[in-house]
Formats: sequence, structure tokens, C-alpha cells
Amino acid sequence: MNYPGGIKKSTIVKNITYKNRGMNLENDLNLTNQYYIDNEIAFIYKKPTPIKVVKATYNSNGNRVITEAYYSEPSTTDYNGIYKGYYIDYEAKETKNKKGFPINNIHLHQINHLRHILKENGICFLIIRFIEYNKTYLLKAKDFLDYIDNENLKNYNKSYISLSYIEEKGYLIKEKLLKRLDYLEIVDKIWRLL
Amino acid sequence: MNYPGGIKKSTIVKNITYKNRGMNLENDLNLTNQYYIDNEIAFIYKKPTPIKVVKATYNSNGNRVITEAYYSEPSTTDYNGIYKGYYIDYEAKETKNKKGFPINNIHLHQINHLRHILKENGICFLIIRFIEYNKTYLLKAKDFLDYIDNENLKNYNKSYISLSYIEEKGYLIKEKLLKRLDYLEIVDKIWRLL
Repeated sequence: MNYPGGIKKSTIVKNITYKNRGMNLENDLNLTNQYYIDNEIAFIYKKPTPIKVVKATYNSNGNRVITEAYYSEPSTTDYNGIYKGYYIDYEAKETKNKKGFPINNIHLHQINHLRHILKENGICFLIIRFIEYNKTYLLKAKDFLDYIDNENLKNYNKSYISLSYIEEKGYLIKEKLLKRLDYLEIVDKIWRLL
Repeated sequence: MNYPGGIKKSTIVKNITYKNRGMNLENDLNLTNQYYIDNEIAFIYKKPTPIKVVKATYNSNGNRVITEAYYSEPSTTDYNGIYKGYYIDYEAKETKNKKGFPINNIHLHQINHLRHILKENGICFLIIRFIEYNKTYLLKAKDFLDYIDNENLKNYNKSYISLSYIEEKGYLIKEKLLKRLDYLEIVDKIWRLL
């Protein structure tokens, strides 16, 4: 293989690694979900970011332009859809933290939402990426909620789920070429949908 | 009952009717879905409106303000969630048309989405309100797609589903006080979830 411009191989590799890590979790999941859709495996979508529009007008082309708006807090998880006829629901977050996953990454009403979906027998989990280790885990909502409930958290804003708990209870998601994060492979196994 | 200010009864009734009609379909569905959530019957949410943010800045309070953004086309239906463990998915539209429902109210990729969900055995339908008659129908996605496929539509932008077809194949949703549009009552019956 030729390296144009005579760049050293090591530099190239470094760039590629950096580029891969630059592909954030949302992009990886979008590509994965698009793969699932294109192959009619599952229909799972990221919900649009909730935005509260305050002012809107029309531009010279007659198109509506929003000129003042604010991001608002989501009331549910970001991703949901259908897989093999089952309702599937998850939240995805990445963290730079090395020791664990800061719980306040998941809003309180998202936690409530997870409880509701679990009660209704939905397939429900978190996808957590540790950026520093470049590792992405699937953690069942049940195990996430068990941790929160048992730890008797004193301070929601300062608490985190230890990496060791996630390594023990969670499932490492393999990175692949097309199905960047083939999380349904894990869903098949742990919910016995095979 | 007293009518303050000596307004004639007929005027009051007219106002109430007008007010009810002013409660648009989205509001009615939000109230209904909130009732379902509060009573842990179902967890069905309207997805946020998709907005493409072009420019954002910070205001003097340090909050992020979006200063230029545009509405973008949704790739899925607006509502989805879980009911009795089943995946549920629908689009809701109101029309002032008296003869029928203009098909271009449903975007082409929403039609595709309905096909996908149906294939995956999701519970999937349209909720259509005829504003002029103040009547709201549930029409199964299957019957909607059958109509489109069989009518061999020549012009998507000018075609509509006749009111008589919707009256024949659809189900009239009763208006109630708290569960404004208790569409799950119909879902129970026609999908035999009772």
C-alpha cells in the first residue's frame, strides 16, 4: 500500500485511530441503525433533539426560519423502535471519566421512563462508551436501576456507576465495519431472541 | 346554571363548541397520552419536531440560544411507544377537507416507515381528524397502504382517501373527558388485545 505524500506509516495509523475515536457514539449508532434498516433487521431511530421554538419568521424564499429557540430536556430516552416484533428502547452516552459512568448523564425523568418501559416488558438498556478506553458497553436497564436503588445514592449529581460494575454486569459491544456497534447481537443473546 | 354577564345560552354553546374545536388534534393526543402515562396504561410519546440547527450562540446568562434553524421533514411517524408489551406506532393528522384525506399529508418516507413497522408486526395506524365534521378516525396502516397500493395513484400530490373509505374501514374515536381520544379502546378491540 502506498502512503501518498510520503507520510510515515506510524503517522497514518495514528490518524486512523484518532479518526475512529473521533467517530462519536451517536454517529456509530446512526450508521448501525441505518444498516439495520437497510437490511430490514430492525427499525430503531434516534428521536430528534427537543427544541423549544420562541421566534420564527419567513425568509425571502418564503421558508420558515427559526430565529430564537432553546434546547430542552428530553422526557424519554433518545432511541426507540421495533425489533423482531419487540419494543426496544435505550439511551446512549459517552463519558471521558475513567473510573465510572456519572449517573447525572441520565436525567431523572429518563430514569423514570426506563422504569416504565421495564414494567411494560420492553427491551430496555443503556449503551455507555468510555472514550478513554474506547470501549462501549450495553448495560440492561434492570442492572442500571438496581445499582441506583441499592446504592442509596446520597448525591445524584456526584454519583457514578463504577467501571467494575459495568464490566461485571454489562456486555462489551464489538466494533465492526458496517454494523459499527452491533448491539442487537447482544440483545439476541441476553433476551434469548435467537 | 347561570350565564355570567347575561350572555344568551346559544352564544355560550357556540363558544364552547368553538373552543373544543380549537383544541387541536395534537393537544387532544397529548392529554390522552399523558392520561395513559399517569395511569401506567401505556407509554406513548410524540417525538420532538425535527429541527436542523444552523447557528447557535450563548446568551448573557450562559445559556445556549439557537439563532438560525429550519424545520426538517420527519423520517418516521410522530408517535410511538409501548402498550401491553406491544410496539405501537402512529401518525396523526387533521384536515379541513370535507371529501377526504389528502394523501400528501403523509410524507413518502413516513409511508415507507409504516410498511416497515407493519412487516415487523407492530401495531400501526393513522389517526385522522376531519375538522369540519369534528370526527376523528383510527385507520389501520394496512387499510391505508391497501388503498394507496390498489388505487394506483397517478398523482400523489392531488390524491386523497375518500371519506367514505375511511368511514367504512376506519373506527370512529369517541371523545371523552380525560382520555380525550381514547384510541387504545379501539386498539384493544381490533388487535384483540383485550
